Amino acid sequence: MSGLKDLETPALLLDEARMDRNIARMRAQVRRLGVRFRPHVKTNKCHEVAQRLMEGPEGPITVSTLLEADYFAQRGVRDILYAVCIAPNKIAHVLDLQSRGVRMSILVDNVDAARLVAERLRAHPAGRDVGVLIEVDSDGHRSGVQPDSPELLAIAYALRNGGARMQGVMTHAGSSYDCRGWTALRAMAEQERSAIVRAADRLRGAGIACPVVSVGSTPTALAAEHLQGVTELRAGVFVFFDLVMAGLGVCEVDDVALSVLATVIGHQQEKGWTLLDAGWMAMSRDRGTAAQEVDQGYGLVCDIEGRPLADYILVGANQEHGIMARRPGLPADGLHLPVGTQVRILPNHACSTAAQYPAYQVVGPQGELRARWPRFSGW
Amino acid sequence: MSGLKDLETPALLLDEARMDRNIARMRAQVRRLGVRFRPHVKTNKCHEVAQRLMEGPEGPITVSTLLEADYFAQRGVRDILYAVCIAPNKIAHVLDLQSRGVRMSILVDNVDAARLVAERLRAHPAGRDVGVLIEVDSDGHRSGVQPDSPELLAIAYALRNGGARMQGVMTHAGSSYDCRGWTALRAMAEQERSAIVRAADRLRGAGIACPVVSVGSTPTALAAEHLQGVTELRAGVFVFFDLVMAGLGVCEVDDVALSVLATVIGHQQEKGWTLLDAGWMAMSRDRGTAAQEVDQGYGLVCDIEGRPLADYILVGANQEHGIMARRPGLPADGLHLPVGTQVRILPNHACSTAAQYPAYQVVGPQGELRARWPRFSGW
Repeated sequence: MSGLKDLETPALLLDEARMDRNIARMRAQVRRLGVRFRPHVKTNKCHEVAQRLMEGPEGPITVSTLLEADYFAQRGVRDILYAVCIAPNKIAHVLDLQSRGVRMSILVDNVDAARLVAERLRAHPAGRDVGVLIEVDSDGHRSGVQPDSPELLAIAYALRNGGARMQGVMTHAGSSYDCRGWTALRAMAEQERSAIVRAADRLRGAGIACPVVSVGSTPTALAAEHLQGVTELRAGVFVFFDLVMAGLGVCEVDDVALSVLATVIGHQQEKGWTLLDAGWMAMSRDRGTAAQEVDQGYGLVCDIEGRPLADYILVGANQEHGIMARRPGLPADGLHLPVGTQVRILPNHACSTAAQYPAYQVVGPQGELRARWPRFSGW
Repeated sequence: MSGLKDLETPALLLDEARMDRNIARMRAQVRRLGVRFRPHVKTNKCHEVAQRLMEGPEGPITVSTLLEADYFAQRGVRDILYAVCIAPNKIAHVLDLQSRGVRMSILVDNVDAARLVAERLRAHPAGRDVGVLIEVDSDGHRSGVQPDSPELLAIAYALRNGGARMQGVMTHAGSSYDCRGWTALRAMAEQERSAIVRAADRLRGAGIACPVVSVGSTPTALAAEHLQGVTELRAGVFVFFDLVMAGLGVCEVDDVALSVLATVIGHQQEKGWTLLDAGWMAMSRDRGTAAQEVDQGYGLVCDIEGRPLADYILVGANQEHGIMARRPGLPADGLHLPVGTQVRILPNHACSTAAQYPAYQVVGPQGELRARWPRFSGW
C-alpha cells in the first residue's frame, strides 16, 4: 500500500472516503430534521476536516476549548459556541474573541455564574454582543439546570436584569453513550428534545425571549425521529466514528474512519502475544468499550488495508508497547505476523486517540497517502 | 496565590521544590547503588527538567520515541538509548541521528529483528557505531527474550555475525507497578537484577562481550538493595511521582510534583457534585489507581495551595468536565466551593497527564509562578 510503509509508526490514519460517507449521513439527517447544524469540532480540531462539516466558511461551530475558538477564528469562522459552562478566568479571552469580530456564545447553569457573567460583560464594550445560553440538564450526567426548576427562571432573570444578551438554552444528552439499541437511543433523543423544549417554553411563558434551542450528541442526533421546537443540532464524533459508537450500534465497524498505523516489533509466542509499537500513548487510555457487550481492549486490530483481523485486539498496553492477542477466552492460535508487519488499529474513542497526534495522514480510496492535515491539542 | 489565578484553566502545574526533592532522593539512591544513571525522559519531555536529571549536558538519557531523541539531540545530548524494540521503519531515523554525532543505542528481542538490524546497519557508514542491546524479559509483562532461553544466544550470534555492535542487555520490570509494599518491591528489584545479570553471564560464557547491563523502573530503582553486576539504572516517573506511585508506597502524596489547576464552573447540589473545567482530556483517561487499595478516580482534589481536600476526588469525567465529589460510600456533605474557585488535582499517572499539555507552569516555594517550560508530545 503505497506511502503507508514509509511512515514512521505509530501514525494516525484518516480514511477520507469513510469520513465523507459519515458526513453525508449526518447532513441527510440534519436536512430531514429541518434544523441548523452547528458541528462540534472538539473531535477533529482541524480546519481541513471542519470545512467539510460547516454550513459555510464562517461556521457556525461548537468548541470545547478556547484554543479551538482561537484556531478557527484565525481561519475565518465567525460564529462560535463555547459549550462548557464559563469559568471566570476565561471571560477576558471570550471578550477578546468577540472584539475581533467573532460572534461568541457562552454557557451558564447557575445564578452565581449568571450574575458574574452579566457584570463582566456589561463592563466591556464588546460584552453586550456576547450571547449567553443556559445549559439545561436533560439526563443527569453532567452540568446543567433542571428544566422544571425555579432556578432556570432565576438564571434568566439574572442575565436579563444584568444586561446580558440571553440567547437561549442548550443541552447535551451524554448519557446516550450508555444506551443499548435504537429503541433506547430514540427514547434518549426524545428525552433530550422534550427537556430543552420544556425549558424554552417556560422561559417564553415568563416573557423571556429564547431564540436558540440547541441539542446534540452523535447518538441522539442520528436517532432523533423529529426535533420539533429545536433550532439547532450539535454533534462531533460522527465525523470519524469509533468502536464505542459501533458498540452502541450507531455505526458499523467499517464506518470507523480513524485508525492507528503500528508495526510488529516482536512476539511472546508461548503467550500468543504480538508486540506492536503502539501502546496507550498512541491509542489513549480510553477503555470506553470495557462496559459494552464487546470489550475491544485498547483497540481492534486490522490488516494494512483496514480489514479487521477477526478477534485480534490490543489486550494490554504499556506507554509505547501494545500487546496484540486474541480476545480473552479464545485459544491463542494461528496468526503470526513477522517483525516489520504493519497493522491498523481502530480506536475505542476518536476524540481521545486523535488528541495524541499532531496530524492526520489522509488515506485515499486506493490506500494511497493523499495529504497530511495538521491538528492541535491542549488549551 | 500570585500568578495562578490569572492562568486560564486547565493548566499543568509543576511544584519545583517537590521535583528537586524527588531528584535528590533518586540521586542519593543511584550513588548508594554505585551505577551509572540513564534517566528516562519519556515522562518529562522537557529540556529544563531533563537538565536537572542528567549527569552532564550530553546525557546519557533513555527515550521512548525518536521525537524525544531528536529534541534532546538538538539540545546537545549525545548518548541516547531508544528503549522500545526497533521497528524497521525507524532504522533510517536512528542512522540519521547517529550520523549527526549522537551515540544511539537500540533494542532487539528476537533473531529476525537482529538479522534485519545487522543488515541495515552494515549497509550504512554510521551503522557500525550504533549500539544494539538485547531486551530481556525479567517479569513477563511485555517484550524481551527469556534470560535462560537458547534464543538469547541466537540473537547475540545474529548480531555479532551480522557485524552489529552488540552493546549489552537491558530489562524493565514494569510489573513493579503491580507490587504491594516494600517487601514485594524489593523482591521484584532483585528479580529484575538477577535476570539481567544471568543473561549477561550467559553471553560472556559464550564469548560475547556485554559491557552494558541495564535495569530500571522507578519502583525497583528505589527499592533495590544492591545492583551487583548491573552497570546502569533507568527511571523516569520519579521526577514528578503520581498517585499510582503513592498508592504503591514508593512516595507520599505530598511528593507528587505535578497537578492540574482547574476552576469550579457549577454544581449539582443534590448529588454533592462540584463541576470543574478539567475532564479526562485534562487528566488523561488513566485510571491506574482503580486496581489499587485507594481508587483516586480521575485524580485527588487539593486546594489552591496543594493541600488535599480529604476524600474529594474526580468521581467522573467528560471530555472537558470533571465531576468532583466525596469518595463513593461517603456521605456527600459540607464542602461548597463557589463558582470561580481554583483547585489543584493530583494525577493518577504523571506520564499520561503531562502528555496532554504543551507546557509546565512552574510554581515556586511561595506558590508564585516562576516560569513556563515548554514540553512536547507525539512521535
